[in-house]
Amino acid sequence: MILSALLTSVGINLGLCFLFFTLYSILRKQPGNVTVYGPRLIQAGKSQRTNAFNLDMLLPTAGWVKRALEPTNEEILSNLGLDALVLTRVFVFSIRVFSFASVVGIFILLPVNYMGTEIQEFFDLPNKSLDSFSISNVNDGSNKLWIHFCAIYIFSGVVCYLLYCEHKYISSKRIAHLYSSKPQPQEFTVLVSGVPLVSGNSISETVESFFREYHSSTYLSHVVVHRTDKLKILMNDAEKLYKKLTRAKSGTISRQKSKRDGFLGMFGKQVDVVDHYEKKLEKLEDDMRLKQSLLSGEEIPAAFVSFRTRHGAAIASNIQQGMDPTQWLTETAPEPQDVHWPFFTASFVRRWISNVVVFVAFVALIILYIVPVLLVQSLANLHQLETWFPFLKSILNMKIVSQVITGYLPSLIFQGFLMIVPPVMLLLSSMQGFISHSQIEKSACIKLLVFTVWNSFFANVLSGSALYRVNVFLEPKNIPGVLAAAVPAQASFFISYVVTTGWTGLSSEIFRLVPLLWSFMAKLFFCKEDDKEFEVPSTPFCQEIPRILFFGLLGTTYFFLSPLILPFLLVYFCLGYVIYRNQLLNVYEAKYETGGKFWPIVHSSTIFSLVLMHIIAIGLFGLKKLPLASSLTIPLPILTLLFSIYCQRRFLPNFRSYPTECLVNKDKADEREENMSEFYSELVVAYRDPALSASQYSRDMSPEDPPLLRSYQS
Amino acid sequence: MILSALLTSVGINLGLCFLFFTLYSILRKQPGNVTVYGPRLIQAGKSQRTNAFNLDMLLPTAGWVKRALEPTNEEILSNLGLDALVLTRVFVFSIRVFSFASVVGIFILLPVNYMGTEIQEFFDLPNKSLDSFSISNVNDGSNKLWIHFCAIYIFSGVVCYLLYCEHKYISSKRIAHLYSSKPQPQEFTVLVSGVPLVSGNSISETVESFFREYHSSTYLSHVVVHRTDKLKILMNDAEKLYKKLTRAKSGTISRQKSKRDGFLGMFGKQVDVVDHYEKKLEKLEDDMRLKQSLLSGEEIPAAFVSFRTRHGAAIASNIQQGMDPTQWLTETAPEPQDVHWPFFTASFVRRWISNVVVFVAFVALIILYIVPVLLVQSLANLHQLETWFPFLKSILNMKIVSQVITGYLPSLIFQGFLMIVPPVMLLLSSMQGFISHSQIEKSACIKLLVFTVWNSFFANVLSGSALYRVNVFLEPKNIPGVLAAAVPAQASFFISYVVTTGWTGLSSEIFRLVPLLWSFMAKLFFCKEDDKEFEVPSTPFCQEIPRILFFGLLGTTYFFLSPLILPFLLVYFCLGYVIYRNQLLNVYEAKYETGGKFWPIVHSSTIFSLVLMHIIAIGLFGLKKLPLASSLTIPLPILTLLFSIYCQRRFLPNFRSYPTECLVNKDKADEREENMSEFYSELVVAYRDPALSASQYSRDMSPEDPPLLRSYQS
Repeated sequence: MILSALLTSVGINLGLCFLFFTLYSILRKQPGNVTVYGPRLIQAGKSQRTNAFNLDMLLPTAGWVKRALEPTNEEILSNLGLDALVLTRVFVFSIRVFSFASVVGIFILLPVNYMGTEIQEFFDLPNKSLDSFSISNVNDGSNKLWIHFCAIYIFSGVVCYLLYCEHKYISSKRIAHLYSSKPQPQEFTVLVSGVPLVSGNSISETVESFFREYHSSTYLSHVVVHRTDKLKILMNDAEKLYKKLTRAKSGTISRQKSKRDGFLGMFGKQVDVVDHYEKKLEKLEDDMRLKQSLLSGEEIPAAFVSFRTRHGAAIASNIQQGMDPTQWLTETAPEPQDVHWPFFTASFVRRWISNVVVFVAFVALIILYIVPVLLVQSLANLHQLETWFPFLKSILNMKIVSQVITGYLPSLIFQGFLMIVPPVMLLLSSMQGFISHSQIEKSACIKLLVFTVWNSFFANVLSGSALYRVNVFLEPKNIPGVLAAAVPAQASFFISYVVTTGWTGLSSEIFRLVPLLWSFMAKLFFCKEDDKEFEVPSTPFCQEIPRILFFGLLGTTYFFLSPLILPFLLVYFCLGYVIYRNQLLNVYEAKYETGGKFWPIVHSSTIFSLVLMHIIAIGLFGLKKLPLASSLTIPLPILTLLFSIYCQRRFLPNFRSYPTECLVNKDKADEREENMSEFYSELVVAYRDPALSASQYSRDMSPEDPPLLRSYQS
Repeated sequence: MILSALLTSVGINLGLCFLFFTLYSILRKQPGNVTVYGPRLIQAGKSQRTNAFNLDMLLPTAGWVKRALEPTNEEILSNLGLDALVLTRVFVFSIRVFSFASVVGIFILLPVNYMGTEIQEFFDLPNKSLDSFSISNVNDGSNKLWIHFCAIYIFSGVVCYLLYCEHKYISSKRIAHLYSSKPQPQEFTVLVSGVPLVSGNSISETVESFFREYHSSTYLSHVVVHRTDKLKILMNDAEKLYKKLTRAKSGTISRQKSKRDGFLGMFGKQVDVVDHYEKKLEKLEDDMRLKQSLLSGEEIPAAFVSFRTRHGAAIASNIQQGMDPTQWLTETAPEPQDVHWPFFTASFVRRWISNVVVFVAFVALIILYIVPVLLVQSLANLHQLETWFPFLKSILNMKIVSQVITGYLPSLIFQGFLMIVPPVMLLLSSMQGFISHSQIEKSACIKLLVFTVWNSFFANVLSGSALYRVNVFLEPKNIPGVLAAAVPAQASFFISYVVTTGWTGLSSEIFRLVPLLWSFMAKLFFCKEDDKEFEVPSTPFCQEIPRILFFGLLGTTYFFLSPLILPFLLVYFCLGYVIYRNQLLNVYEAKYETGGKFWPIVHSSTIFSLVLMHIIAIGLFGLKKLPLASSLTIPLPILTLLFSIYCQRRFLPNFRSYPTECLVNKDKADEREENMSEFYSELVVAYRDPALSASQYSRDMSPEDPPLLRSYQS
């Protein structure tokens, strides 16, 4: 790739980005699109849908950028939660790192690389290959490589320093968040699993007697978990019916006051719609009540146990309870709306085995992922299509069609496969036996990150069969050499990857094409009142964080190899900062709060990137015949890992649980509060399975969803 | 090596063992030797030294074997403690494993191996090479190897099952031990380090206010640690003087009532000995009092904090206390006599760095250990000696002398180097910042085990430079092949190793040659009353456990390679069981109780041995051209590791701390006790640094050591 080609690509993508931003700034002002671009605002009651026309509405403005940058960190923390703050801080951290890297890279390393082999003619700049700007342009054994050596040391030091500061900042915000928030049920509650079966006692009695005995001063109440999967299927049906009924009653489907009760509503005798639905609903409810009464006996040996104080709950969750470590397992309870009800298997062994199985499946998926992709791609070539669809032969033989198909079809298939990866990862994680959605999401985030690094970075760098790549990593001694030979060769690919995939990804994030089209279609084909049912989308931490971290990995590894990538990355992070702040403020809503538990993933990923860079540097200095520099780089990964271990010991405990000091202080502050008895009475019922407390739809016919149903939906 | 040579060696060693045992059974009955063979009994007051002669005393009897086997496990637990029980259980476990292995090995594998290549002539048995009994005798690709394959699977299953049972048994005994024991200070106490410095407050005040605030209901008292290293040097001097003085007063050194006070007691004016010592002691005491008053200001930010209940202490030690995870670090306190006072550095960072430094030193020692040994050995050859000591030339040229020197000197030097390894490991561990002797010993035990496996197993198997061995392990793919080629070749070496080093080690353990000689010399050269000062030796867990485990490793890896080793190992374990029970009952005394924490080391070592065997099997089936068996063995190490992880989750928590259930039950039982207030008042002073409470020797001149001094000595 030559420089002018890169600049053209940059120009086109920049143009596209601005086009998208302009369209966005116009479209977001249209009142009809508020459900797409501001669902969060509607729910918060900040945005009213008006239809008054205004000329201003058709002019693109940059006011949204200003508004997105306005809120301070404290405002973000209190309004959007800690997880949203972590997301913005990932961008801040990346901007800091790559600002420094860009300065060093562009003003020191780039000229050194460019002057590497001979004195270059400056006037021929546009036709220079990108390789002239990378380290491969420097002669073997040249002393100029010592500049790269120093840059690597300094860069690693700066990254570690910034990482430390950021870790400290987020850690302190986590404590501040606890102090400033109201009492939350999850702070007072512990999930107990592996309750032993005592003959003659129900699970509930066993739990009660155990905690009355061993936590007499702080025990408040408990809720035993029931097996409710069948009930939930009934509930879903009832919920759908209930919605239809509400709509029918409020006259939405007024055109169709009566319907036939036979197959697909086409046959049978005509019945009144409302009557028909009400009867159906009553029947379903009878079923549900029957199930509920049956299920109340079907207890699972797990319970949510609530305590009077946060410290009491922490004591129960931090200390092994029973004599058998596989019984009376305690862990901090998730938020009530975050509980993943489907998975409450009884036995320790089953949970453990499913973990092992998921791990094996995950490793197999990562390593073998590329096989089906290549297989499908090879099937989707021209000849294959011609054999399958002979009637397309004449069209396929046209030059332009064949070019489009051979050019885009494989990439389309690849993108399609990539699209299904996040749901698959979420599915795998949900099978692992996590008790909350947030844990599932965190685990999926890690899986997705590993997957991205392996299948986007290593698959491109170490081209060859999957088995070849696995083999490379089975011979640790050869890794630096192999990587050092392979990674610099892919520099121009990754530069255009940042410009195309990175920048376009951001534009499509803010433009929200799919929801926009969806809302347009809905307006076109359905009646307008439907948009009352719109849902605020959940913040997609688990998809976004791996993507951002992957760009960080690219920047870190190519920092000294090909510094030309750095300014493009910096643009990506700056744009991303504005866009994600905007989306967090307007679009997404966190369904649950993990308390900043995504940050440790960012930390580990950054350390991994650094060590990867060091390994490549060790190999590269070896290849460039500078063995002394190669040996002198060896302490760097060791020091980085030591720094990482130190950070983990210094900060990680605060991400796992809150210290006694905070808990007792907060408990004491609560004692002075007046409405704690109210809170306790709410606490007692907070962890009831929504399936068991589902109320009667047919009796309670107010147009709003009943509160219990709402808590179930969320 | 041929069979008859092996049998000769076995015969000689067996004879030596019986000789030692006979001598032991005679010598132990001599009243003069009771300090050597029964120090524990004397201290317990069970053995009286009588000088009455009896003919029976000169006849060897086997009564000691019977007496050693008499006590039940429960008696051992209550009299000798859990650690002693663990040591005997290691033998029981090994005997069970190798009984099974011997049956399979001798009756199935050995005949298969022997019949491997051709029909052998039985009458020429004594002249057969030991290789005829090993797997190398089986033809490549022979289907007989499937018998070995099955044996490996079955053996692994049996070992895992036995390991599980043993783990369960010891885990239950640990709880039983807690229930049956009296209240111990360490159960109620927590060591707090990293106490933050608050300006205007002393450390003591900070600790007091923190725990009064956050543990108001259970906090009892605290003792701040002081820096007392200089004081301890003075104390040691005083102690020595005090002993001399006591002896002088009681007339022991009556021959020498007066001495000169000059250089070496040869010059200067004659003074009365008692007067002289008393003056010196008084001066030292003044120094000490001065230091004590100075030191009471020199607080270290660490304290022993005692609580009213065990549960209270567990809460403080299990939950992070301060907001900064590097401050208010809590851990369970060791027993008062187990505290390692010298190491109380203030900072988290320093403790952490010293850990890293020790780790690096340990790795360097392990890998480079062989270098100085070889160097010294090469220096100690004949020519070198001749150059250094020309006057020895005529002696060295004698054939027998040169043979002895070339034959024994290198091995003597090697043994000498091996002797200094345990103290070096203990030294390394003590630098790591452990707070108790038992932790140091446990850590040294692990280090010694790793050292033994690397330098006794791998160094013999992979002959070649240390760097070559490290290189082998840097290419994981080649490990099975390299090991499979190298390990079987050393079978006969390890068989004779078991017979010589193993059996002889046991004889010398029971015979206690060094203490016997020492006691003999003492009687010869010093006056008899000296033996009042004899000390009961501490149980050498940290030296013995790695040795036993190493023999287990040999047995496991050679189980299918060369089953001839198994009966010799079984003899070793049976003898060891009797001998160590005898030693535990009569000789050693546990200075502190770790609560069975050596057992997890045994578990890990056994799992490692199994996996090593599996890896060798994978490589060997590959070499023997049976690739299917090789592939089918691959799941075995994975299953074994999964089993190990399961065991660790199932049992290990109980080895780390006691569960709430036990603690609360025990606390409640204590409440019903009457003498708890007495215990509390003892608890308050239990963790005072002995250096700060050392009393006046000169005033308190009773012949017995003052109790505080005694507690210091132990």
